[in-house]
Amino acid sequence: MDGFEEGKKKISEAVIRRLPRYYRFLSELQGRNVERISSKELSRSMGITASQVRQDLNQFGGFGQQGYGYNVDYLRREIGRILGLNQTYTMIIIGAGNLGRAICNHQNFDRRGFHIAALFDIDPKMTGKEINRVPVYSMDFLETYLRENRADIAALCIPSSRAQEVAMLLCGCGIKGLWNFSSIELRVPEQVKVENVRLTESLMTLSFAIKEAGGPQ
Amino acid sequence: MDGFEEGKKKISEAVIRRLPRYYRFLSELQGRNVERISSKELSRSMGITASQVRQDLNQFGGFGQQGYGYNVDYLRREIGRILGLNQTYTMIIIGAGNLGRAICNHQNFDRRGFHIAALFDIDPKMTGKEINRVPVYSMDFLETYLRENRADIAALCIPSSRAQEVAMLLCGCGIKGLWNFSSIELRVPEQVKVENVRLTESLMTLSFAIKEAGGPQ
Repeated sequence: MDGFEEGKKKISEAVIRRLPRYYRFLSELQGRNVERISSKELSRSMGITASQVRQDLNQFGGFGQQGYGYNVDYLRREIGRILGLNQTYTMIIIGAGNLGRAICNHQNFDRRGFHIAALFDIDPKMTGKEINRVPVYSMDFLETYLRENRADIAALCIPSSRAQEVAMLLCGCGIKGLWNFSSIELRVPEQVKVENVRLTESLMTLSFAIKEAGGPQ
Repeated sequence: MDGFEEGKKKISEAVIRRLPRYYRFLSELQGRNVERISSKELSRSMGITASQVRQDLNQFGGFGQQGYGYNVDYLRREIGRILGLNQTYTMIIIGAGNLGRAICNHQNFDRRGFHIAALFDIDPKMTGKEINRVPVYSMDFLETYLRENRADIAALCIPSSRAQEVAMLLCGCGIKGLWNFSSIELRVPEQVKVENVRLTESLMTLSFAIKEAGGPQ
């Protein structure tokens, strides 16, 4: 994905990547009953320049007003709409190990419109249980389940060795997006969207920063 | 962080962000006993252009040879060195819930030089246990532990409401890096490096991609 068209203008991927952060900050502000915010204040909390903020938000048609700043509620709602958060998504979790359970217990997802409907696991000891009131089914039941139930997103919380095979099964069942926690690069049909969470790469980025600051102890 | 100096040249943050991916692909190639790779093949697996690959790697002094491509082992080692992976890091995990346990059970980290030494939790039922042969201690013991033991990195796998307070405690004990899984923006002294894993933002990026492709079911 290199960008997208909103109205006439092409929005760059870098801006798209920043939108969830804007959304998070604006949600925090709303939670503190802040009604409006200047680009300067917004930029300070985001750690980018005020002119970058204005440039980013101007791409969507300029939500700000000179001397007033941005209306927090309006801007949050508009960014949410651009992100597709005015819709709800049904998510299933493949793998009910620690990671799958952590995702299932996460408080934020449901609030943001991501409804977790089921977990799947190969371990017979797990199936039949509930995690955070979400049922755990056998992997053998996955295809049948998907014929009868809606699922937009599948979180892949399984070993890398099985991720590709399970991804293909899910794609065959009409899944729209894969949230991939495995370390492999999934090969999927173009219409299926993949978002990778690369924990090892994130840790390497941290080790780089520590090294640059003088190295470990 | 805007970049860093390697030799004479300034390396951009975008390149730095790609280095862990190069490292991962090169590790995969090495695992398959591939000895050399062209920028074209490397670019295809990375999903970027061959000229981008050449441009990225040229910044470190040109590891490639015309007509030969890159020596996988050498390139992997050099990128590892730049990332600080030729050193070992000691990591502790704050919070032995599902997420903390998932991190502790992750196979890749130790192999990459990130040694997990201890977990800490406020739950008395957890303390005294071992997870993947790593001991779980009480949070009350954290400061004492850090006076007597080395820890470079702390993974924060605790609720957002407690993350800032615990981060400050860790900074006071000389931690070098925080791997932050909470959703808040940590305020820490400049010498302490923070790497955030933003799960909710990652999910929003996926919902955006699904929306752009036609929306949920």
